[in-house]
Amino acid sequence: MPVAMTIAGTDSGGGAGVAADLKTFEAHGVWGTCAVVAVTAQNTVGVQAIETLPAALVRQQVLAVASDIGVDAAKTGMLVSAGLVRAVAAVVAEAGIRRLVVDPVLVSKHGDTLLADDAMVALRDELLPLAAVVTPNIPEAAALSGIEITDRETMAEAARLLARTGAGTVLVKGGHLGGDQSPDLVYANGEGTWLEGARIAGRHTHGTGCVLSAAITAELARGMDPADACVAAKRFVERAIAAGVPMGRGIGPVNPGWGREGA
Amino acid sequence: MPVAMTIAGTDSGGGAGVAADLKTFEAHGVWGTCAVVAVTAQNTVGVQAIETLPAALVRQQVLAVASDIGVDAAKTGMLVSAGLVRAVAAVVAEAGIRRLVVDPVLVSKHGDTLLADDAMVALRDELLPLAAVVTPNIPEAAALSGIEITDRETMAEAARLLARTGAGTVLVKGGHLGGDQSPDLVYANGEGTWLEGARIAGRHTHGTGCVLSAAITAELARGMDPADACVAAKRFVERAIAAGVPMGRGIGPVNPGWGREGA
Repeated sequence: MPVAMTIAGTDSGGGAGVAADLKTFEAHGVWGTCAVVAVTAQNTVGVQAIETLPAALVRQQVLAVASDIGVDAAKTGMLVSAGLVRAVAAVVAEAGIRRLVVDPVLVSKHGDTLLADDAMVALRDELLPLAAVVTPNIPEAAALSGIEITDRETMAEAARLLARTGAGTVLVKGGHLGGDQSPDLVYANGEGTWLEGARIAGRHTHGTGCVLSAAITAELARGMDPADACVAAKRFVERAIAAGVPMGRGIGPVNPGWGREGA
Repeated sequence: MPVAMTIAGTDSGGGAGVAADLKTFEAHGVWGTCAVVAVTAQNTVGVQAIETLPAALVRQQVLAVASDIGVDAAKTGMLVSAGLVRAVAAVVAEAGIRRLVVDPVLVSKHGDTLLADDAMVALRDELLPLAAVVTPNIPEAAALSGIEITDRETMAEAARLLARTGAGTVLVKGGHLGGDQSPDLVYANGEGTWLEGARIAGRHTHGTGCVLSAAITAELARGMDPADACVAAKRFVERAIAAGVPMGRGIGPVNPGWGREGA
């Protein structure tokens, strides 16, 4: 059984972070493991509290699994601080995890900042060089590349700049472009490929980025190559958005369990 | 979609605790949410590190979900300290969670103590009165009831004593009795019913107790009554044990995803 790991924060509501990742791994028939970086109290309305774990414990969690069970692929989500970003980069290298997906989470759907400014620099300079795939949305790609993104051309330019960090494949998610299309750009080996897709109607989109990057990770764990994994994951998350769960007073979660019998 | 919550520790290896619970909820088509009480670095060999979260954050996680999404049923797992046990009991009452399953985790499969002595007293006196179902194994039932358990008769006596705490249904798991049978006793309303079952061969049993109590919780969330939920969950966990995953150098995990297509 392939093994995937999520290195991320928890979401008490189960729609994002570790829970969303584990549900997505499970849907792919991949054994899910986890290194918890932070614990949040949150629901469909927003984040009420957040507590980070010591960097040493994050390292111990990764090594406990890598040294015994083995990690075929891993992803990072919310990493909160520069210290934690550096600790994660160091242990990913130490554990020899090569199929790494970095979801450069900066801001939540509710507008809560999830990564400090110096942490973004650490992520760009220390973690992206280790990434097989990095999955920024437009605001994240703009912040990491330092350019303004307003259309497909500037999306492609940002992808080229991000590839210089050493990340193997850059997936820029076009959901923030507006319009009825939601095109993503897969950029690898100096070439960009557009993944076309209609915008999926549905206001319950909490966890979209987590489920996408977890699905890429699951496919890498199963042996798919990064560009194909981006395609498969985009189609997976489109179904998860369409199956979004109307719960709570705010933005409900996408459902990575859409393919389960009876779901 | 019914909503279940796990109030427990995380297991980096994904075989027990929050991960096992979320995988089990997912297998039942129940939306999984979580209040993380502690984070552990562990694998198939043992527990390498453990860090507890502040009681206030545990409370915030439960209330974030209960006040917005709603909690149809919840379970508790590893609670570590008396302070955390009391905080959990208080917030379960405050949130009005009535379908509560208490897995009175005392010691891990590897022999690591997961609950301090004064915490056991707090669990018995403050949490069990709120429980719809409590699921001790024989060592746990012995510790909580204060009697030695060596056979079916003393199992039944311990169940009677534990029912006096106010727990609605007491499920005493007979796996530690030895022999080729693994009979469980469901005790409710002054009457005991034996659930017969052959011992499932398989050395990969990490997470058995978590998956059982999570499966009961999922069935309660779906509206099943407690005694029937114990039966359904016993049959579910038998399949999970039979599908146990040989991974790592030690005791591999049971697989709550046994029913997934292709698993």
